[in-house]
Amino acid sequence: MTTQALPREPRQNRSRATRARLLEAAIDCLASVGWAGTTVTVVAERAGVSRGAAQHHFRTREELVTAAVEYGSQVRTARMREHLDALAGRRPSTLEVLTLLGELYTSPLFRAALQLWVAASSDEQLRARVVPLEAKVGREAHRLTVEALGADESVPGVRESVQATLDLVRGLGLADLLTDDSSRRSRLLRQWAETLEAALTRTTPPH
Amino acid sequence: MTTQALPREPRQNRSRATRARLLEAAIDCLASVGWAGTTVTVVAERAGVSRGAAQHHFRTREELVTAAVEYGSQVRTARMREHLDALAGRRPSTLEVLTLLGELYTSPLFRAALQLWVAASSDEQLRARVVPLEAKVGREAHRLTVEALGADESVPGVRESVQATLDLVRGLGLADLLTDDSSRRSRLLRQWAETLEAALTRTTPPH
Repeated sequence: MTTQALPREPRQNRSRATRARLLEAAIDCLASVGWAGTTVTVVAERAGVSRGAAQHHFRTREELVTAAVEYGSQVRTARMREHLDALAGRRPSTLEVLTLLGELYTSPLFRAALQLWVAASSDEQLRARVVPLEAKVGREAHRLTVEALGADESVPGVRESVQATLDLVRGLGLADLLTDDSSRRSRLLRQWAETLEAALTRTTPPH
Repeated sequence: MTTQALPREPRQNRSRATRARLLEAAIDCLASVGWAGTTVTVVAERAGVSRGAAQHHFRTREELVTAAVEYGSQVRTARMREHLDALAGRRPSTLEVLTLLGELYTSPLFRAALQLWVAASSDEQLRARVVPLEAKVGREAHRLTVEALGADESVPGVRESVQATLDLVRGLGLADLLTDDSSRRSRLLRQWAETLEAALTRTTPPH
């Protein structure tokens, strides 16, 4: 048993590494050349993987791209968690959390996800696949932001403030799509940090 | 002179009406079938205009779509102005303004513009054409929002609050792309109305 099982391990690892290379290449490809230019063949070439091997993992562009955005969002969650852990117990400031969110929502991952959401908006089959993914990614982003801010959602208004924060950074991501919007974004996030802090530390309902 | 000029007028009107029909059809087309499906031929058919007549007005998809988004944004400005005028001097409440913005940023026009921005993000030639348009549309939206809110931008922080409002509704527009997000949006805008009002009526700097 052991002698049979052993050689399989490296093959599985290789397969997993190939899959990850394809998913990362798909995110880069989507973010730079867009939905129309992102085919399994183009992504395979970018990843340095044979077309056959790529199609063993992903039969269609839709499968590949959806998996890539899901994978990217898991990587993003893991990175944000690492970042929080690196603070070694110190609670990050509201502005630190907002700056991190501002970076995430202007990253290739946001651009890749945007390409997928927009393609899905005019393709019923793709939409059926993307809606549950969008909901999952949204829930993860919300949970992580609540945790990073140390927000208490039992306080009335706090949940909405966290949601508004994520809608705001999503809007900022869109504003950064065609031109570098970073200095305006920094200014806005500094002011938003004050507004959000006031909302989070309010212990009585706003009314 | 007069007898020569007169017969030209109806032709010019017809031409202007044809152009407007094409631009409106292009917005609908972009919003429903997306960038890839929006060609001059498809839009001409949707508008009930011959392909030849359409190409007399717009030689390429890029020309047509850019003109459509510019036209749509002018129509939007005009409608918002009408809406404000209909209030006959009464200042709309902050929530009324936010509700109007929420509607605008989930309309076919927003979806059409989103298709154009996203297509431009991976097409250098199109980007060069779209960047000035995006800036113009952004300036108009900002000016109109300031006016509707009766905001005094000389007060520190007010300009950023108006900008954050527009980034927030842009993010809300994106959140409405694949699923109906209207009830969450209403809740968020109600809360933001209170925060924004406090920011606008603050007569001293936030520090």
